[in-house]
Parts: sequence; C-alpha cells; structure tokens
Amino acid sequence: MEDRAAVQEQIKTQGEVVRKLKAEKADKDTISEEVAKLLDLKAKLGDDGPSKKFVLKCPKGTRDYNPQQMSIREGVFNTIISCFKRHGAETIDTPVFELKEILTGKYGEDSKLIYDLQDQGGELLSLRYDLTVPFARYLAMNKITTIKRYHIAKVYRRDNPAMTRGRFREFYQCDFDIAGQFDAMLPDAECVKIVAEILTQLDIGEFKIRVNHRKLLDGMFSACGVPDDKFRSICSAVDKLDKTFWEDVRAEMVDEKGLSPEAADRIGHFVKFSGGISTLEELLKDEGLSKSKLAVEGLEELKLLLTYCDLYKISDKVVFDLSLARGLDYYTGVIYEACLQGYANKPVSASSGGSGEEEESVSVGSVAGGGRYDGLVGMFDAKGKKVPCVGVSIGIERIFAIMEQRAMASNTKIRTTDTEVYVVSAQKHLVEHRLKLCQELWDADIKTEQSYKKNPKALDQFQYCETNGIPIAVILGQSEIENNCVTMRNTNTRAERKVSREDLIEEIRKELISIKSS
Amino acid sequence: MEDRAAVQEQIKTQGEVVRKLKAEKADKDTISEEVAKLLDLKAKLGDDGPSKKFVLKCPKGTRDYNPQQMSIREGVFNTIISCFKRHGAETIDTPVFELKEILTGKYGEDSKLIYDLQDQGGELLSLRYDLTVPFARYLAMNKITTIKRYHIAKVYRRDNPAMTRGRFREFYQCDFDIAGQFDAMLPDAECVKIVAEILTQLDIGEFKIRVNHRKLLDGMFSACGVPDDKFRSICSAVDKLDKTFWEDVRAEMVDEKGLSPEAADRIGHFVKFSGGISTLEELLKDEGLSKSKLAVEGLEELKLLLTYCDLYKISDKVVFDLSLARGLDYYTGVIYEACLQGYANKPVSASSGGSGEEEESVSVGSVAGGGRYDGLVGMFDAKGKKVPCVGVSIGIERIFAIMEQRAMASNTKIRTTDTEVYVVSAQKHLVEHRLKLCQELWDADIKTEQSYKKNPKALDQFQYCETNGIPIAVILGQSEIENNCVTMRNTNTRAERKVSREDLIEEIRKELISIKSS
Repeated sequence: MEDRAAVQEQIKTQGEVVRKLKAEKADKDTISEEVAKLLDLKAKLGDDGPSKKFVLKCPKGTRDYNPQQMSIREGVFNTIISCFKRHGAETIDTPVFELKEILTGKYGEDSKLIYDLQDQGGELLSLRYDLTVPFARYLAMNKITTIKRYHIAKVYRRDNPAMTRGRFREFYQCDFDIAGQFDAMLPDAECVKIVAEILTQLDIGEFKIRVNHRKLLDGMFSACGVPDDKFRSICSAVDKLDKTFWEDVRAEMVDEKGLSPEAADRIGHFVKFSGGISTLEELLKDEGLSKSKLAVEGLEELKLLLTYCDLYKISDKVVFDLSLARGLDYYTGVIYEACLQGYANKPVSASSGGSGEEEESVSVGSVAGGGRYDGLVGMFDAKGKKVPCVGVSIGIERIFAIMEQRAMASNTKIRTTDTEVYVVSAQKHLVEHRLKLCQELWDADIKTEQSYKKNPKALDQFQYCETNGIPIAVILGQSEIENNCVTMRNTNTRAERKVSREDLIEEIRKELISIKSS
Repeated sequence: MEDRAAVQEQIKTQGEVVRKLKAEKADKDTISEEVAKLLDLKAKLGDDGPSKKFVLKCPKGTRDYNPQQMSIREGVFNTIISCFKRHGAETIDTPVFELKEILTGKYGEDSKLIYDLQDQGGELLSLRYDLTVPFARYLAMNKITTIKRYHIAKVYRRDNPAMTRGRFREFYQCDFDIAGQFDAMLPDAECVKIVAEILTQLDIGEFKIRVNHRKLLDGMFSACGVPDDKFRSICSAVDKLDKTFWEDVRAEMVDEKGLSPEAADRIGHFVKFSGGISTLEELLKDEGLSKSKLAVEGLEELKLLLTYCDLYKISDKVVFDLSLARGLDYYTGVIYEACLQGYANKPVSASSGGSGEEEESVSVGSVAGGGRYDGLVGMFDAKGKKVPCVGVSIGIERIFAIMEQRAMASNTKIRTTDTEVYVVSAQKHLVEHRLKLCQELWDADIKTEQSYKKNPKALDQFQYCETNGIPIAVILGQSEIENNCVTMRNTNTRAERKVSREDLIEEIRKELISIKSS
C-alpha cells in the first residue's frame, strides 16, 4: 500500500516534469525521454490504475490555488493593499450574494451572466457580479455620502472562461472608490495615479492607461447623428474595438443596430483619435463636436485630468483614446482602462489615416478599469439622492497568470511556509522532549515544526529542512538532554554548535537575523 | 439638499447613541432624553421622510462589515494566521462553490442546509458548507497524501440565523488541517495546542477545550446495547447535550429514535463523565467498556492526547468529556470543541450524581471545533485510498461579536486608515502645488491624503486630521512655496516647524518614529 503511494507520488512528480518541458517547448528528444520514464512508472502500477468513481474537478471556470500560487497571490495583494492604504482608504466587506433585485437593471446586456441561487424558500438571491453595485447599495443603505474605501473580494460571472488567459467565472476584484461631492477630476486623477502605482510596483512590464469620457462619447454620438435612444447600444459596439476590427464594429452598428452608414462612418473618423492634451485641443476646435455641450464638457474635464496626471508624474503612462467605451451602463464621466503592452491580439483598425492615431498593436491584457458613476447610488435611494462616485477595479487573475508563468519559467523555488526552526530528534524515544521544546519555541513566537512521527530518522528530518528551506535545525539527543543544551545547525552551511537551553531563544533570534542579513 | 443630508447624518448618529444606551441598559431618564433629541431631529425632516422604493438590506443571515468592524476583523485574522504560520502551515484556496455531488452524502442530517445554485444550464453547483470537504476533494484530486495547510474563507449554511449571538448564514471559518500517515496523537495534539494558543492570544476570556473520541462513543453505545445501525442517530442526539437537558435528549432517543429505555439510561450514566487522565483510567476499568475494543482504543488514545497536552502546557484548558459528540458524520477519531466560559445557557443536566461530573453551567460559546476524519478523502478516491486527516476550525463570527461589543463598550476610537500625513493648503489656488507634493510623498511610500476640494478651508483640513487621527499635517502656503519649504504640524501637540523641501521625507520619517515611540 505504501509502495503504491510512493509510485503514485513519483508519477505525479514525473508528470509535472513532462508538463513543464512541454510548456517550455523543450527539445523533442528530452521530452520523449521523460515521457518514457513516466510510462515506466505508470506500468509499475499495473492494470488496476485509478478509475475514478466520478469526475473530481472544480466547477467550470474556477480553480484551486495551491500553496505556491497562494504565495504569489499574497505578494500581489500586499502590493495592492499597501497602495490603497497609502492613499488613505478604509476597507469594507459585503456578502457574496445580494437580493436579486439589487443587481437587476445595473449591467445592461451582461445581466444574463449573473449567477442566481436556487429558490429554496425565502429571498431570491444572486451572486455578486462586481463590487461596485454592492458598494452603492451599502452607501444608500447606510446613508453614507463621503467615503474612500477599498474592497478585495471574489465576483462571479457565467461568462465563457478562457483560463489560460486569466479569464474565470470566479475571480478577484480589487476595488478602490471615492464617494463624495468634490471638485472636478481631483478624485478621478487619484484613481488613475493608483493604477499607475500598482502596475509599476508589480513590475509586470510596460502598460498604458487609456482614458476617455462618457459625456464626450455621448456628445460625439450626437454630433455624428446617432439617435438618442441608440447611444448605449452604439457605445457597447464601440467597446468591442479593442478586440475587433473597425469593419466588424461598423457592420454591427449598421446591420444589427440599424445605424445609418453615414453616422457610422463619422464615428469611424472620431474613434481614431488618441493622444494627449494637444489631441483634446484639436477636438475642441472640431466643428461638429464643439457644438455639443456634452462633448465640450467631456473634453475640458479630460484636459484637467491630463494636467493632474502630469503633476502626478504619470503622463507617460496615460493616453486619451476616443475608442475606449467600457461595457457597463452605469458610468457617467471619466472612464479608464489599463492594458499591459506585449500581450497583443489584433490591431484596432485595418484602415489607415486619422489625426493623432498611433499605429501600434492594441494589447488585450486589460488588467484594470473604472470610471465615474454619479447616478448609481441614487438608483437605490428613495428620493433618488445622488452620491457622486469614482473608482477603479484591479483584475488580478491576469496578473497572477503572468506571474505564475514567470515563476515557472525562472525555476525559482517559492517558499510556502515561514518556518524558522525544525526540532530534530537525534535518537529514538525522545518525543516527549521534542514536544516540550516545541512548546517553548512556539510560546516564544518562533515558527517551529517537528516530525509527526514518534521516532523519525535523523536524515529524513534534515532532508525536510532542506526541502522546505527551514534555516535552523535544533537537535535533541541524549547527551544534549543530559547537558541541558541543544545542537543548533544552520541548514545552509551545515555548521553546528552547542547552545544551552537558557540561551536558546536568544541564540535562535540572533542566528535568524544573521541568516537574513547574509 | 445638503442640509437635509446633514440632518439625516445627525439622526443616524443620534440613533446610534440611543441604541448604545439601550444596549448598555443605561438609566431610563438618560435614554428618554436622548430619544427626545432623536425625535426632534426626525421632525426637522418633515413629512417627506424617506420611503424607499424597495427594502435595502443584506440577505437574511448575512451582514456588511463597516471599516471599524473590518479593523477588528483584520486584528483577529492576524492573530489566527500568525499562529497557523508559527506551526508551519501553508495555505490554499478553493472556489466558493463545488459540484453538487462533491457535497452530497457528507453532512448527514445537515445536508438540507446546503445552498444550491440555480440550474442555468451546465453543471449543478452548491455553495460550500465547510472547508473540510473541499480540502478532501483537493487532496484526492491532486493525489496529495501529506500536507499541513490552513484555509480562511466564508462558508454558507441555510440555518436559522441568530445574528446577535454570532450565528450567520454566511460566515468565516479558519481551518488548520494536517493530512498524512503519522504516529498517534502527534498531529491531533498540535491542533488542540493551536486552539489554545489562538484563544489565549485573542484574550476574550476563559475557555475550555472539551475532547472526546468517536471510537469511545461507538464503543460506549455498543456497551450500552445500542444497535449498530443507530450509532449515528444516537450520536447526534448526544450532540444536543450542550444546549438541552438530559431528560429531553433521553426522550428523543427513546420516543423518536426507538432506543430501549435501559440503553438510554446506561448512556445517561456515561455522558456524565468528564475530567482528566484519572477519569479515563476509571473508565478503562469499567466492566462494560473494557470489553469493547473500540472503547479501549479510544480511551488509550485520549490518555496519550492528554499526556501530550500536558507537555504542551495546556492541561488546564483541556478536559475530557464523554458528552461531546460533534454533529458531522465524517469524524473517526479524536474530536474537540472549544467554548468560552461566561456565555452560559442551560445546565447540561437537571439530575444529580455521577463520577467526575462538574456541576458548572455549560457555555454555548462554541468558537472552535474539529477532530480526526480518516475516511473522508477516501470517499473521493476511486480505490477508496485513505488519507488520514485531523483538523480544527475556528469560527470567528462569535469572536467578532464579543470584540465588537467590547470595543463599543470601551468607547475607544478605532482608526480605520493608516494615513500618516495630510497635505494642507493654507490658501487658495495651491491645488497644483499640493498634487505635486502628494506625488512626492506617495512615491516615497508615505501614506498621504489631501482634500479633494480645490480650495478647502484650512480649519476643515486640520479638523480632518484630528477626526481621523492623522499624526502629521504638512502645510503649504505662498510663503512656504517661495522659500521652498513646508510647515510641519504635529496634530496632537499642534507644534509647528518649518522644514525645507529637500529634508521633508527624512523629517517626516523621523517625526513618525518619535510620535510612535511617545
């Protein structure tokens, strides 16, 4: 029974070797060699190999996190939370599900992606689709008119998963929002600054934050001759420009959504605009746009936003882009989206020309997005009282995917525990002495492990320290016990020295400091 | 409009004052006085008071956490995670829902409390009921035979909520489990030690950890003449002894579950036993029990457990109690449950006598529990290959409830942000200078806030520092800008001094250290 388990363990390890080689696209012969080893191991198990009672899996679009993945995840969270706290945010939490009616009518076409709970008697419930609507519900319910909060939690969407690209049905959002009646662009610019800080610190490569304005989009639609009642549906067509050619988006506008070809072509002219303040000034002079109050308001606010971004020293990361639309219905002002460069998919447009256009490929690595939503809280208030809000959501699955791939490629061993000391029995029949010593170390807040075998082999114990990167072994033998001391061993250098029991805690602390600084 | 919001804010604050006084059972006159103030405020709003479109609430049995509550929660988590890491645990995460069939047949009578998701096409899913079954699925799926992991996450039960007593439908579990083939009681004792460490460090009052053994229970049932097929149902009757009188439990056994009155009375004799090693030795000599191999195994293991607990210096917290049964079906060995003293409900028994019986009232403040479950992983394995496991789950809602009540009673202000510096405009038209300064501070990793108004009043800004406990204000005025310096103000002492811009970061760091150490 034990042998069988050992072989299965070897098969698992060998399977990982093969998978890794394949992922790295190693040379064919190397792979074949390792596959052969794997098959040999499998043969050892004979014909009675595993045949499961039922499929053991996570639900579609979801995943487990193993300890290595959790280490990476904790690192990412620490960076994000530190940034949110650096900007003075508090944090809140809300339930994973909401009354169904709270979510109704907030997500436009995407509402079909909401997970409902079965009606088992009582209230009708749905899993949250994002953290923004629960936040708005929280503000309205508690009559809060000013708050700066972050919220890190999982959200749920019955979308088509693409897990290798970091698209899941259960995924984390890290949201930072500022609610309150303030002056133009001051909270908005801070949100953009936060995205820039986090993506810079995560060090996952070059990125750009595209910004646009819902008022400018609406003003532009109006100037192009889009009927008022088609604004939202044309907007969601524009939203597809980061993944689709203009020709296809145009076809959707004209053929599916009944827009006139002339209006669509006028939109096609505008969505090519991207750049900085000078591009905004050029658009302010545009004959069509300058007649629209909405468009002018949007352009002026964007100018102010870019000015503030300049003061925040993030101008090189921020670019105005009239083709950015964002899917959700509730945005009312500035919108933004951060994309990693170097994760390119399709070019935005096959056609040429256009002022301020940059002929670079558009990355699909959207890792953060957000904007201003001044009307959402009012939807929950009996009097419709509005609480202006602006926020940003960092989507970390994509970031995890990149970091995991990187960790795998670099072959660096990630420690998944913080254990500082391993208490080793040098002989048999010392389990009670070991337990006593562990107790002393735990109570002194030293991270300590020991074998759960009564009489473990010395070699196995040292091996455990090396495999798990535990820096210190504290060894108990008969002579140590007689002399009221221990042998302290540095796992890395293998240097050993005797330490008296009275000095042990202090000596461990010193040793740990010296190991960390070396 | 703004006035109205201000009044509503005052009403909210005043409402809290009243609620707090009532909770504290303050004297009647004080309460009446404050209620009168509240009514006056409400009158100000006139007849057109709020009348919501629909009820704004969290789903039944769930709650939001506001920033103060989150501060308490983070403190509790830190204590628990530190302990888990001190014992060398890794962490994993699993999805909030599982395939429905994974949960089927694991929870006995409690299965009716599982939340199912609506069938929207695709897989049938259920919200997790605990973290133990997903852990077992994870082990079986990944063929893991040895791991020590913790998992902190929310679980879901469609139970009857009692929220003031910390019983929710959505609640956190903090689980620590050791999987692997080890020697008797070594992992088990460490789980008990961990519970003792955490509850001691949380400092929420006296507690006791009751321990028992499923084999002893089964052996005892057999010795009492309970038919084999009634073991589990009689066990779940015994489980109610912490909330119900013996007479009622006896009635359930005899009238509902068809046990003979004689067998029930024999059980009634045994469930009074509680104590230490001497009690176990007394039971080993019991004529009926000593004939049962199961009972003797259980008693011997419990003796070893208590010996190890003694070495871990937690004997004073641990008590053997034959009336402890634990609800869940999957336990196979040692079981334990930690209860806070001083949250008493009903006495365990109205009858008298019985060796080793302690005549104290039984607390209902169960805050942790667990045990050994050697068969669960095998239920997911095609060959039924077992992975022995033992673990503990800390239920923190109850602990939160106590800490929240304590925080409210002590009236200490809980800081909900970590902000170190507030950048203050002393005059109008300095917003751009402020933004530049904030950028410098953020980029130096100093936690900094500023007003989101373009031209905020100086007094409002200082007030913000005091209200939010921000230790340092950095003031910018025209003269500071001309002299390339700032005025640094200690919020607490109100002492001010000029600091040059070059030295600012360093001076802020020094000031923060001196404030923290004072």
